[in-house]
Parts: sequence; structure tokens; C-alpha cells
Amino acid sequence: MIQSLRHDERSRALAGLSGWKICPDRDAIEKSFTFKDFSQAFAFMTRVALAAERQDHHPEWSNVYNRVTIILSTHDCNGLSGKDITLAHTIDTILS
Amino acid sequence: MIQSLRHDERSRALAGLSGWKICPDRDAIEKSFTFKDFSQAFAFMTRVALAAERQDHHPEWSNVYNRVTIILSTHDCNGLSGKDITLAHTIDTILS
Repeated sequence: MIQSLRHDERSRALAGLSGWKICPDRDAIEKSFTFKDFSQAFAFMTRVALAAERQDHHPEWSNVYNRVTIILSTHDCNGLSGKDITLAHTIDTILS
Repeated sequence: MIQSLRHDERSRALAGLSGWKICPDRDAIEKSFTFKDFSQAFAFMTRVALAAERQDHHPEWSNVYNRVTIILSTHDCNGLSGKDITLAHTIDTILS
């Protein structure tokens, strides 16, 4: 059973991430990314998709031309879990 | 200069498409697609991305696990144009 992160756990987890913010209206984290063009944005999305499939944990995301917005939350606990933090780190690593 | 579709043109265009609806709050068309899982959904998105790049006309879209929602509108005319109708037909052809 996946548990959502406790207050102290999420504070520590967020402190270790750059640019990810708690969504105002739900227990999830969000980050937006801007690229040169659609091709670059979709190339990034493809790498995120492969990572998500490997982790069996998938983003809620949208794309408009060169912009990608990713929301991470865990359906099983209806909130933010360690799986979201792991995927957020992986996503940031893709761009590092 | 790309022109947005006239009333008679958009009626005819929409009549030739299945499942695409005018967005309630903007001059755009929208359709949602459901797949077996994320892998199938992203495979579809990849084919749409290639078609969009080929047509130099890109969707506004979102994905949550096995669901993909696509909005088509044309930035250059701030509304619905023939480019959106062409891409909508291509997207439907991918699934046919």
C-alpha cells in the first residue's frame, strides 16, 4: 500500500528538488519546461515517457508547442508519494 | 496569411469529422481518446507528433495515463483554420 508523504517528508523531498511546486488545488507537484521548439519538447516527453513506464508511474502532463507542464501525484494514495519524488528527480536528470 | 474558417466552412468541415467538437470557451476543436494503457496512449501521441511536425501545425494536448485530449486551433489567425481540419483528419486516420 502506497502512503502519501507526511509533512516532514514532503518538506525534505521538495527541498531536494529544483523548480517543483506544490499544486495550489491538490496534493501534487508541478513543473513547467520550455524548449526551443516542438521537436525538442516532444523529444523530452519521449524520454520522460520511457522513464515513467520503467518506474510504472505516469505523469499528468500537457504540451503546447515548446512548453511542457508536468503534474505528479499518486493515484493509489490520492496524493503525493515517494514515487512522485523519484520520477521528479529522474525528469530533472534527463535535462541535466 | 491564414484565415479562420467562415461559418459555412466550419459547419461543412465539422460534418466531415467524427467526435470533434467546438470548444465551449474558444475558437478551437477538441477530441478525447482512450487507450488500453499509457504505452498505447503514448504510441498514439508519437504518431500524432510526427504528423504535426510534418504539417508544421501542432496540437495543444494533455495526457493522463490512458487518456489523451487534443485541442486544435491556429495561433496565426487566433481561431479555427483549415490546418486544424487537416490535422484532425490525419489524427483520425492514425486510429482507423
